[in-house]
Amino acid sequence: MIESTRNSRVVQAARLHRARYRRETGKTLLEGPNVLEGALSSGVVPETVFALQRDELTRRADQAGTDVVLVSQAVLDKLAGTENPRGPVAVATIPQQGAIEAVDTVILCGIQDPGNVGTLVRSAAAFGFQVVATAETADIWAPKVLRSAAGTHFATNIVTGATVKDVAAAGVFLVALVAAEDGRAEPDEEDRPIGLMVGNEARGLSANQKAAARATLTVPMSETVESLNAAVAGSIAMFAIAQGRPA
Amino acid sequence: MIESTRNSRVVQAARLHRARYRRETGKTLLEGPNVLEGALSSGVVPETVFALQRDELTRRADQAGTDVVLVSQAVLDKLAGTENPRGPVAVATIPQQGAIEAVDTVILCGIQDPGNVGTLVRSAAAFGFQVVATAETADIWAPKVLRSAAGTHFATNIVTGATVKDVAAAGVFLVALVAAEDGRAEPDEEDRPIGLMVGNEARGLSANQKAAARATLTVPMSETVESLNAAVAGSIAMFAIAQGRPA
Repeated sequence: MIESTRNSRVVQAARLHRARYRRETGKTLLEGPNVLEGALSSGVVPETVFALQRDELTRRADQAGTDVVLVSQAVLDKLAGTENPRGPVAVATIPQQGAIEAVDTVILCGIQDPGNVGTLVRSAAAFGFQVVATAETADIWAPKVLRSAAGTHFATNIVTGATVKDVAAAGVFLVALVAAEDGRAEPDEEDRPIGLMVGNEARGLSANQKAAARATLTVPMSETVESLNAAVAGSIAMFAIAQGRPA
Repeated sequence: MIESTRNSRVVQAARLHRARYRRETGKTLLEGPNVLEGALSSGVVPETVFALQRDELTRRADQAGTDVVLVSQAVLDKLAGTENPRGPVAVATIPQQGAIEAVDTVILCGIQDPGNVGTLVRSAAAFGFQVVATAETADIWAPKVLRSAAGTHFATNIVTGATVKDVAAAGVFLVALVAAEDGRAEPDEEDRPIGLMVGNEARGLSANQKAAARATLTVPMSETVESLNAAVAGSIAMFAIAQGRPA
């Protein structure tokens, strides 16, 4: 049982809340039972699980080969990014990034809010979409984003630091999700797989990104409202595409 | 120009971040240009706008009859719930609550995350839905919820502290949004207006709430993912209902 918040394993793990340490080590934190469960179910073996007590989930981690370490509430408080944490916090290696596949894809083009990034990962996994994030997007492997995605990071292919042109080069048909129709056509039925471009919360897609798109999609809605939340708009468009009927 | 964070108007306004003071005064805070703009466009006249400088928006507020007060960055920091605020913070009276109408409605049944509550209000306004919140739902008039809804609180009818039975009594057909189909039918085309019940993020709908529903809706998705974010699931269902094709 580790009781000291100055224990070196605890100090090193807590540093993974900072982007710089995640980059240097290639590791991140899985916080709470949902994220840990999602990782274990996808065959990810965390390096360490810090937990208040042993339970079904820590037993599964232990059997998979993870080092399960019991810690005090003070240590868990230091490790977790949330207030009054109860669930385990695990250290895991960020999966090696694979190639962009020629499948339906959501492209996060500068999404900044970690909650929105995580929500889009969760919806992408639910609707069978690959996730590609541009360099301007918030770190997809940040603990906060993993929490918001509720353990679904490991259920879909994720590629970061790519451009929309990289996605097009993989054989994906680029479609810009826009708040108001700009006169361009919607994708045809044969325009598959689709690369759905979702822009920044405040600024939307850049002019360059819009120009790279071969069609646009708009979620029809009341004119009294300017726009939907970016994660909601992207999720509705993925749902509509998955149903075979672009919004 | 108010420069002291101990100015009595500033102290009283800052208290409105607490639920107790909102209840006692019937007022709340509108933070940032989007929320203030949404309020002004819907004919709401805030009591006071605290701003760093005069601009187009403060001029509109001034013309509407709002007292515009210039403040220092330190004062704005104290008034705002966000870090490094730039936009104005306004004090406004929470609109008098009207009756539940016989129109398509989203019923927030114990949604706890302020971001989710705000996102659902925003989607409801976008898809022409009334919003009803049960007593177990996070305070819909909290400044954080208003921020997340981006100024759309004033674009739809909002009723709080109601039960799903109150909604049914107003002539609305109750439909439970559930993560997995439970054998009950989807609503028919003539089952309108719909009252879409969205449950708590972790626990979903209560047994009582489910029993009150006359049909269920499920967003079809991959079996590898347990559920969508509650605000996303509710928004997709509202979108599908608005399109005349329940998910």
